[in-house]
Amino acid sequence: MSYFRPEIAAMAGYAPGEQPQTADFIKLNTNENPYRCSPAVEEAVREAVARGLSRYPDPTAGAFRHKAAEVLGIDPDWILCGNGSDDILTIVTRALVGPGELLRLPYPSYILYTTLATIQGARSEALHFHRDWSLPAEFGAGGPDLKLVFLPNPNSPSGTMISPDAILRLAERLPCPLLVDEAYVDFAETDCLSLVGECERVMVSRTLSKSYALAGLRFGYLVAQPHLITEFAKVKDSYNCDTLSIAAATSALGDRAWLAETRAKILATRQHLADGMRRLGFDTVPSQANFTWNTHPQHPVKPLFDELRRRRILVRYMDYPAWGDGLRITVGTDEQIAACLDALRRIV
Amino acid sequence: MSYFRPEIAAMAGYAPGEQPQTADFIKLNTNENPYRCSPAVEEAVREAVARGLSRYPDPTAGAFRHKAAEVLGIDPDWILCGNGSDDILTIVTRALVGPGELLRLPYPSYILYTTLATIQGARSEALHFHRDWSLPAEFGAGGPDLKLVFLPNPNSPSGTMISPDAILRLAERLPCPLLVDEAYVDFAETDCLSLVGECERVMVSRTLSKSYALAGLRFGYLVAQPHLITEFAKVKDSYNCDTLSIAAATSALGDRAWLAETRAKILATRQHLADGMRRLGFDTVPSQANFTWNTHPQHPVKPLFDELRRRRILVRYMDYPAWGDGLRITVGTDEQIAACLDALRRIV
Repeated sequence: MSYFRPEIAAMAGYAPGEQPQTADFIKLNTNENPYRCSPAVEEAVREAVARGLSRYPDPTAGAFRHKAAEVLGIDPDWILCGNGSDDILTIVTRALVGPGELLRLPYPSYILYTTLATIQGARSEALHFHRDWSLPAEFGAGGPDLKLVFLPNPNSPSGTMISPDAILRLAERLPCPLLVDEAYVDFAETDCLSLVGECERVMVSRTLSKSYALAGLRFGYLVAQPHLITEFAKVKDSYNCDTLSIAAATSALGDRAWLAETRAKILATRQHLADGMRRLGFDTVPSQANFTWNTHPQHPVKPLFDELRRRRILVRYMDYPAWGDGLRITVGTDEQIAACLDALRRIV
Repeated sequence: MSYFRPEIAAMAGYAPGEQPQTADFIKLNTNENPYRCSPAVEEAVREAVARGLSRYPDPTAGAFRHKAAEVLGIDPDWILCGNGSDDILTIVTRALVGPGELLRLPYPSYILYTTLATIQGARSEALHFHRDWSLPAEFGAGGPDLKLVFLPNPNSPSGTMISPDAILRLAERLPCPLLVDEAYVDFAETDCLSLVGECERVMVSRTLSKSYALAGLRFGYLVAQPHLITEFAKVKDSYNCDTLSIAAATSALGDRAWLAETRAKILATRQHLADGMRRLGFDTVPSQANFTWNTHPQHPVKPLFDELRRRRILVRYMDYPAWGDGLRITVGTDEQIAACLDALRRIV
């Protein structure tokens, strides 16, 4: 007999992308930023260490919320900080979705959403994107048990976006909160932040892992109307963000020049990657994120992934049941992408 | 109407101890270590920053688990790392306790245990300690819905311990896992680590917040048999520990001399604190932790707390319904404790 809840005993657990602990891979599999974070962030960590680590951190990460509020043009009480945006997704799911209730997500998208529903003993409803990566009309439909809708925007693995207008129309039809997961939004042309004030059901989550090159730090945040933030705060661990990550994240948001420069480099390399893949005959979806989604009309992609891996180039092979497979390739440096394209040229 | 689960809407949320963001308090309210962490830890953080933060951390914190396994004399696969031991308590509760099921804890103890049950939609059963801080016999009783028992050891606010022998006998009677929360165990004379191998229902959680002076870092861990660790790992956020905290925690466990020296200083000061309080007429429970629990046969303690606070000395006033109130005073430096005792001498 098991001590565990049946949902837990039955589940496989989320398998994150491979994180080899050696440095000899060109690592294009988990959408990390190929550049080093802002020097101001590293200095902020060193200063925080110098101030000491023996005290508990500010439980509400006030310094970050004030800086983010200033940068985003909102009030600090519209912001909840998390230990990575995964922590935010966990908090939101635990607060809203009870056993047997329903969580909706598009498919294919972030596998974690379904895992979070399962851990709650809840049901999840994965509605397939159309082949052009638009959403089916029923994505905005109501339902008595529907408690939360996740919408990654830009989406992974496609890198595509739904327009803010369309998202607002969705939220207005829905009976429950819609969390727009903007993990990749700094690489996109638009975002949904202003919708949060227009409709209380729209919430936006962000992370510093991708655009700020701080995946190692674990820092994310939620923007929602204050009466919702108050409820979510009940569910978080008291000290979910640590002294060093709060200092670093605050500093990161303050260095707008670094972000603009890094974004410009990644967008330029993304174009090289997409052009190169198309020249090799791939169907490469136009991306608004820091990766591209690639299928090939003639070649099965799994052997390409294996052969790239053998050559120490790690991309992400995704195989979505009832949808299909493909290669998700992170936008690295120009040199890394040139090496990846060169290897593929020899393989295809 | 609320979007939130009824349990969440109804709850008050856990209020952590006051964390003034100014430095002009003598802060003896949240059991932080008054000393600075090991210099090796600060150096480890600086080295980790120098290596870069753009990559995701090792999802299993392998470096820490190997070091801890060496220090504790166990295998790395008996260890699960968490973002503070609060994260461990959260993971364990989510994995074991479903809606309507039962979680047991002693009373008074750590208020978070009940909060975690509430968030799960579970019930909690707080069994009162005897007045001598021993456990009632029914603490080891079974029950069809009982899924998890929490036992802080040393306990807070009392600083008292249940012997490992008594805990093993408890676990052998229980139908479910017993988590021995050893947040304060480095200040005690004994621990329950060896019980984990003797009985699969015994699990031990620890934190680096107190004895290692790393409350700002958020790092804790669970020791349990490997087939249980595998299940708990399904519930944690993939990257729940960050690059800096993994490096720091690994280094902290490696500096045994720092721990021994700091422990010796705190134990000596604890004796001064207890002696001083008793001389002032307090009933001060003999403590195996880095704080003491104090009541007074003549004086109500709430006015003492208020007056200390007015004098910029912050201790913790605890008022437990159906039990009583008291002052929990963290063991600070000799100077801090002398100042606290001096202030109390003038007030009482």
